[in-house]
Amino acid sequence: MKIALLAGDGIGPEIMAQARRVLDALDLPDMVVTEGDVGGIAYKRHGHPLPPETLAMAREADAVLFGAVGDPDCDGLERHLRPEQAILGLRSELGLFANLRPATTFAGLEGMSALRPEIARAIDVLIVRELNGDVYFGEKGMRATDDGRREGYDIMSYAEDEVRRIAHVAFRAAQGRKGRLTSVDKANVLETSQLWRDVMVETAADYPDVELTHMYVDNAAMQLVKNPGQFDVIVTGNLFGDILSDQASMCVGSIGLLASAALGERQTDFGTFGMYEPIHGSAPDIAGQGRANPMAMILSLAMLLRHSLGREEAAERVEAAVATALEDGVLGHDLGGSAGTEAIGDAVLAAL
Amino acid sequence: MKIALLAGDGIGPEIMAQARRVLDALDLPDMVVTEGDVGGIAYKRHGHPLPPETLAMAREADAVLFGAVGDPDCDGLERHLRPEQAILGLRSELGLFANLRPATTFAGLEGMSALRPEIARAIDVLIVRELNGDVYFGEKGMRATDDGRREGYDIMSYAEDEVRRIAHVAFRAAQGRKGRLTSVDKANVLETSQLWRDVMVETAADYPDVELTHMYVDNAAMQLVKNPGQFDVIVTGNLFGDILSDQASMCVGSIGLLASAALGERQTDFGTFGMYEPIHGSAPDIAGQGRANPMAMILSLAMLLRHSLGREEAAERVEAAVATALEDGVLGHDLGGSAGTEAIGDAVLAAL
Ligand SMILES: CC(C)[C@H](C(=O)O)[C@@H](O)C(=O)O
Ligand SMILES: CC(C)[C@H](C(=O)O)[C@@H](O)C(=O)O
Repeated sequence: MKIALLAGDGIGPEIMAQARRVLDALDLPDMVVTEGDVGGIAYKRHGHPLPPETLAMAREADAVLFGAVGDPDCDGLERHLRPEQAILGLRSELGLFANLRPATTFAGLEGMSALRPEIARAIDVLIVRELNGDVYFGEKGMRATDDGRREGYDIMSYAEDEVRRIAHVAFRAAQGRKGRLTSVDKANVLETSQLWRDVMVETAADYPDVELTHMYVDNAAMQLVKNPGQFDVIVTGNLFGDILSDQASMCVGSIGLLASAALGERQTDFGTFGMYEPIHGSAPDIAGQGRANPMAMILSLAMLLRHSLGREEAAERVEAAVATALEDGVLGHDLGGSAGTEAIGDAVLAAL
Repeated sequence: MKIALLAGDGIGPEIMAQARRVLDALDLPDMVVTEGDVGGIAYKRHGHPLPPETLAMAREADAVLFGAVGDPDCDGLERHLRPEQAILGLRSELGLFANLRPATTFAGLEGMSALRPEIARAIDVLIVRELNGDVYFGEKGMRATDDGRREGYDIMSYAEDEVRRIAHVAFRAAQGRKGRLTSVDKANVLETSQLWRDVMVETAADYPDVELTHMYVDNAAMQLVKNPGQFDVIVTGNLFGDILSDQASMCVGSIGLLASAALGERQTDFGTFGMYEPIHGSAPDIAGQGRANPMAMILSLAMLLRHSLGREEAAERVEAAVATALEDGVLGHDLGGSAGTEAIGDAVLAAL
């Protein structure tokens, strides 16, 4: 079992160190761990945010654990050299088309949400975001109009097979949950969305046990504020998923606890190849101070164990250890507590 | 002064009747009021949701007061015949490029929001949404890929002059408020957004008294949940504006009180030509029952008086009358009260 660790920038290395401790403590047999540079640090060392050796390492692994990228030093760089491009590069090069973003309120932490506690408490949604298509990866550029004005353009598109494979991921996820799937689009305006909707309806025939509904993206953004507890699984395209999944994370409030998976089509010997990362960013303002909360990073490791390594039991052990630490009041600065990075790692290890 | 009233579907006619009573009570001199069909009712009567005679009437007016469209009977129709297409048609045919959507929490109604009251209370944001461009109006269609798969596509684009004119609207609005403008885009991924950002920066040179900042749309969706009170004016493109303005409205909670304006370039003898409508929809489930809250419709009339007719004083009278009715506890069903459509109209008229 090969895991590639890409710690990245800002707080990435600190929180990755704690996830590494947890991984080591699990003492799984036949585990090979490699480490690579990604993001701003990779640009500084190798001249590119996603160096070929890092990409090769990720390709050869069964799973990638990713910290965070983003470095203010790189703000002035051309877009293709900026740290975030490493994420887009990994997603497209590795064919990571299915982004799973669970947003669930942790018991006792309802107060962290900007939503009223009784509304926040009910949040338990899985957002399934398509990650390899849409306006992200279509043709794009700057051009001059006939009369010489500057114009920026980006082509949004989805082909039916791209929609179908993410639909299957979402329907299967709904089967394993409450059986309700909300497909979010803007079919009243976009042809891309009309195709999306058509394929969702076609795919639904294979899943008679799942209840499929459709919602326009503007309404979804409203419903996620008004009553996020109404959702079970949401499936949507790359752009709408970017917006709605961040919104949903913030509805939960404790963003330092939320993990995500980006899965590809390739099956490894143990599960599905994927990349796992916390929702939060590189937080350069608190980097190097030992203040970052590593829980989302550790929970990303749990997702990795589950989806890519077929280690459900180990995944549950890690998740339970984090839950125990939280119940014991080990709260990071982001949750109004005072526990530092290392102390949280200690608490999770102790609970393990 | 010519006003075209387009009541539309569902609760549209009921709430429009109350706005009409308010308009009549103001007894403004030289006022000519016309009425036209739009939406599902127009399709049923004339075979099209935006009949040529309605469009002509709107064109000849100094301002259009619009109720709501949307009718479940029309769900099965082809997209170009569905009621919502009337809105898109009016926006593009009339060149209504600047959508002003104020979202402000009414004193005493913080409890209506899903956000915690202390967070909801601070909301006072104006969203300026571009309304004539973006992926809404670019080339779009269904095509077959080389290997025969179905593909939906939509071209997103902005030319510099389209961005510049909405930038000026937003900067001027910020000058009249707290002087802070947040431009929302996705410049880390989209070329359309890069041009948007470039033109915002260029335009800022004309407004040294306004502080311009940039925010990615995913972050904006988070910040609108976490701390919506941080925003003064937000300016963004058509698609992001659709999502964020609805999200912001829901953060306020009392969506039955929110009005909007869509302004064009044409100057009338009294102000700027525009179309005014409540944020909420046609609510077919409660249509015809006298339960709809007409306040957002009446407040849309106030915006019309201000922006298109240059009647600031009348606008303020109407807004004050609505505020008085609210303070007197005249709350519609949507606000947890029991006042019906007519009773709310009575209360506003009495306060006037
Ligand atoms: C960094 C950026 C390109 C990326 C995206 O838009 O997908 C990020 O916002 C995310 O959601 O992972
Ligand atoms: C009805 C629809 C086409 C419209 C839009 O997307 O602009 C609506 O959502 C709005 O915001 O006015």
